[in-house]
Amino acid sequence: MEVTNRYIVTKHHIEGTPQESDFELKTGALSLSVEPGKKDVIVKNLYLSIDPYQLNRMKRKSSSQETKDFAGAITPSQAIDAYGVGRVVASGNPDFKKDDLVAGLLSWGEYSTIKEGGLLNKVDNMGFPISYHAGILAFSGLTAYAGFFNVCKPKKGEKVFVSAASGSVGNLVGQYAKLFGCYVVGCAGSQKKVDLLKEKLGFDEAFNYKEETDLKSTLKRYFPDGIDIYFDNVGAKMLDAAIENMNTFGRVAVCGVIAEYTDKGKRAAPNMVDVVYKRITIQGFLAADHMKDYKDFISNTTEYIQSGKLQVLEDISDGVESIPSGFVGLFRGDNIGKRMVKVGED
Amino acid sequence: MEVTNRYIVTKHHIEGTPQESDFELKTGALSLSVEPGKKDVIVKNLYLSIDPYQLNRMKRKSSSQETKDFAGAITPSQAIDAYGVGRVVASGNPDFKKDDLVAGLLSWGEYSTIKEGGLLNKVDNMGFPISYHAGILAFSGLTAYAGFFNVCKPKKGEKVFVSAASGSVGNLVGQYAKLFGCYVVGCAGSQKKVDLLKEKLGFDEAFNYKEETDLKSTLKRYFPDGIDIYFDNVGAKMLDAAIENMNTFGRVAVCGVIAEYTDKGKRAAPNMVDVVYKRITIQGFLAADHMKDYKDFISNTTEYIQSGKLQVLEDISDGVESIPSGFVGLFRGDNIGKRMVKVGED
Repeated sequence: MEVTNRYIVTKHHIEGTPQESDFELKTGALSLSVEPGKKDVIVKNLYLSIDPYQLNRMKRKSSSQETKDFAGAITPSQAIDAYGVGRVVASGNPDFKKDDLVAGLLSWGEYSTIKEGGLLNKVDNMGFPISYHAGILAFSGLTAYAGFFNVCKPKKGEKVFVSAASGSVGNLVGQYAKLFGCYVVGCAGSQKKVDLLKEKLGFDEAFNYKEETDLKSTLKRYFPDGIDIYFDNVGAKMLDAAIENMNTFGRVAVCGVIAEYTDKGKRAAPNMVDVVYKRITIQGFLAADHMKDYKDFISNTTEYIQSGKLQVLEDISDGVESIPSGFVGLFRGDNIGKRMVKVGED
Repeated sequence: MEVTNRYIVTKHHIEGTPQESDFELKTGALSLSVEPGKKDVIVKNLYLSIDPYQLNRMKRKSSSQETKDFAGAITPSQAIDAYGVGRVVASGNPDFKKDDLVAGLLSWGEYSTIKEGGLLNKVDNMGFPISYHAGILAFSGLTAYAGFFNVCKPKKGEKVFVSAASGSVGNLVGQYAKLFGCYVVGCAGSQKKVDLLKEKLGFDEAFNYKEETDLKSTLKRYFPDGIDIYFDNVGAKMLDAAIENMNTFGRVAVCGVIAEYTDKGKRAAPNMVDVVYKRITIQGFLAADHMKDYKDFISNTTEYIQSGKLQVLEDISDGVESIPSGFVGLFRGDNIGKRMVKVGED
């Protein structure tokens, strides 16, 4: 059997802020059977993750080694791999059979072909909405969990600041931190998001950074006794302001710098004198390095969700053609919670 | 008995690059006996340490908390405390007696009065020149040792870059790293220093940063396989260039940022995208937090010195009146090795 697979590609490398016109929808015939002897798995995609880091893969390869060990460059006109969840429609791999629910590195389209050795795992749904397996129970959740517990090494009662706090990772960091017993302040880019953080997610305080003119004073106001932990999703001036307000032995976990992805000129310039005298640690990390904590993460997180202690924020668009606008919107801060696209019915 | 104590003070707060005219020599009568009931210790100073960090204490107090927990501000016209070694001339403290060799927080002058609770320890000379107890066997050495072993957490064979490599701390970091089995490249500000690093201290390579126009390319040339550890003494553009050339899981130890002390506008703006994707850790530290390793540091370092494996670089001026020029010269990179002043004969 053969189907028409619709998928999204970039037309060219993207250097600045992405536009919808940088993308196009392609169509190709796809046979839903695996050639004998091949171990491919063909998956009908259900939910796909839309993440800011993909922009770095769309840039022209620079001399910098920044993506060398993480995710390879995206080639214009070629399918774009992305984490997601789907159903197996055909498998030449004995580990997977038709109708298995699987999550892994799929692609921004209606179907994915996963070669032998590709990232793919069977999913135990545990009664959750399927989308959870592309978001909170996948890399967004693990990033928040491992970043907060392993990188920030919190102590109860510590003061935690989270930027992009209504985003896919930030909202979870704040919630984990509250559940752990920290004081948590988040910042976001609209009053609506601020209200959500305080009223629905239980943040102690939140503010709209777009309404603040002097971030250093703002943070001083929200943290009169200083910041112990800063979970940084944005970089640039917010990082500088946080360093200025940190306590001795403060820790900064950096898992993304969305303010710097679209503008190379917009860089953090933290006061290194503060970094020395306050013995601050700034640590970049990726969730993939913390797979040893995956089981802990899943067992704690599913329990928190089931008991209603952890709110799941999803922001799901519909149809493969919505991927470009969904992706572009991330850089305007359109999303509340985890941005995904639903590309197929189960 | 009473003596005349000559000591150095600042005339006012110092904001930019320090000048000799910012200092003056003061003279005061000092009684060489301790009032009954007081636990003061009066010390005749022998060698005093001259360190760049003192400049931060001379600045007008800013809103930043940078020196809150470390060393208090220096008040103009008042004696300036500094680490050093000397002989007890009078003691009301039962832990010290006349003629004891002591090291601790003395002051930039010919005599020091150490109040009860002040930092002061008896010194076992171990046959070394007395000056070693104000330099290599004191905070300069401990900073290098703890910074390299505890903060950088080296593995044999790793590639280490040291800035200000002929300075008091940098030269020791490079030597410890070589002794440990790393590949070490240092940078310094003159050909004479570069020659010293390669010929006397055993660095694998060294370069004069003043002759380089593009530090990123320079580091790429010296580290074609990338940098694993950067021991940062300078901050600013050198830090940016090092981050750009770091390997995954690279570590940056920051114990000073001399390029930023004299010019607040001159800041490092490291590429945080690199920090994330390469999972780099940037950690500020102070030797005082690593006192638990003091014994290890002393036993290893004295053994290295005695066996001739570790070269001791001292840069000693003579007389209390030489302190201002010695201090000011640090910010021009005048010193080779540990800058100290000899203020008295033993």
